[in-house]
Amino acid sequence: MATSGHTIKAFDEDLDRLRALISEMGGHAEHAIRESLRCLVQQDLDGAAKIVDEDKKLDLLEIETERRAVQLIALRAPMATDLRDVVAALKISSVVERIGDYAKNISKRVPLLESGGAIEPLSLLPEMGRMVTEMVHDVLNAFVERDAEAALQVIERDKAVDDFYNSIFRTLLTYMMENPNNIGKSAHLLFIAKNVERVGDHATNIGEMVYYAATGQHIMDRPKGDDEMMVEKI
Amino acid sequence: MATSGHTIKAFDEDLDRLRALISEMGGHAEHAIRESLRCLVQQDLDGAAKIVDEDKKLDLLEIETERRAVQLIALRAPMATDLRDVVAALKISSVVERIGDYAKNISKRVPLLESGGAIEPLSLLPEMGRMVTEMVHDVLNAFVERDAEAALQVIERDKAVDDFYNSIFRTLLTYMMENPNNIGKSAHLLFIAKNVERVGDHATNIGEMVYYAATGQHIMDRPKGDDEMMVEKI
Repeated sequence: MATSGHTIKAFDEDLDRLRALISEMGGHAEHAIRESLRCLVQQDLDGAAKIVDEDKKLDLLEIETERRAVQLIALRAPMATDLRDVVAALKISSVVERIGDYAKNISKRVPLLESGGAIEPLSLLPEMGRMVTEMVHDVLNAFVERDAEAALQVIERDKAVDDFYNSIFRTLLTYMMENPNNIGKSAHLLFIAKNVERVGDHATNIGEMVYYAATGQHIMDRPKGDDEMMVEKI
Repeated sequence: MATSGHTIKAFDEDLDRLRALISEMGGHAEHAIRESLRCLVQQDLDGAAKIVDEDKKLDLLEIETERRAVQLIALRAPMATDLRDVVAALKISSVVERIGDYAKNISKRVPLLESGGAIEPLSLLPEMGRMVTEMVHDVLNAFVERDAEAALQVIERDKAVDDFYNSIFRTLLTYMMENPNNIGKSAHLLFIAKNVERVGDHATNIGEMVYYAATGQHIMDRPKGDDEMMVEKI
């Protein structure tokens, strides 16, 4: 009995460490998204280069998460709910790493937008970035807290991100039509806006994983949020 | 000894079934990508609607893969290499499901491109689709065969996909500049081409997972393929 108690405690500690690692990854990814959009608006090329460079951290943290998750499974042989939590951690770390890739991709576009006058939708992107990074933050908190209800609330917020994106998309298209010289630059902004919108999708995706880890039910069984890749309304 | 042999055999059979499930998912995803591009070129609206509908299959297969992987870990408590294989299967199934999402997204755009004359780059998309679905096919074969070398060869092919995409991207931009009336339609084609290009990235990503599962080494330790999200050259 004492041994069993000890084992459970050790497992809980390992799992807490795994969750802390995911939170750490989330912090990096949120920072990278917000910072890449700040650099974009302020044309901070050095800042943008730094984000590209720092993405390695997330890659290494993902590897570390996988290593620890595998070790935890091998040493502690968790069952049922606990195993579901470890598998969720594995999958969530991949998604967070991908959010970092979007920030890196945005940062790489910063120097390409240097020349020429201001493009209006540019100023809306940081606000959209704020919306999606808050989703990432809250959904990872929901994972740490095993809070299925909080995960569902994050999923519901993706609709507003999609609407925001659609409005930016249309503005960019109008911009392209008014002046063909803007087309190259606007195409980059189109992809940047899309990247930010995709971060919202990924937060939603994590929300589904958190919901499953916490309840054992796939969200598919109930009315589903708009988690899928959207199509622009033109 | 007999019991141990039996257990190992049972594990191998379970793992083979898991691999077969991933191959099945891959078959669906490859078909969906190719078929979505055929529907696009031939304006087959019914075919496109069918792909959107059939994407549910991939979602269910991913859930089934996860269920079996978790069961396999819980019942057989695999160690080291075997556990790495199961974790790879888990992660790969998520990526294949995402490839299906790209096909679904392309299919949803088919009705939006209905009106108006032919756009030249359209005819290049099926060829690009063929390149990336072959990558998906070969990299999943590499997973089934545990062939790290074959995985590396697939990764190397992503460069050609990126070049192809870049050429389509530029053509579309020229197209937009020549006639502003084309901008809405071209924007959809831009996202479709991007989706196809992303499938190549995902095949590359799977290649890295296969390499790790087969060798225990992350590909990061050696000269790395161009696995990351690209930036268009304008």
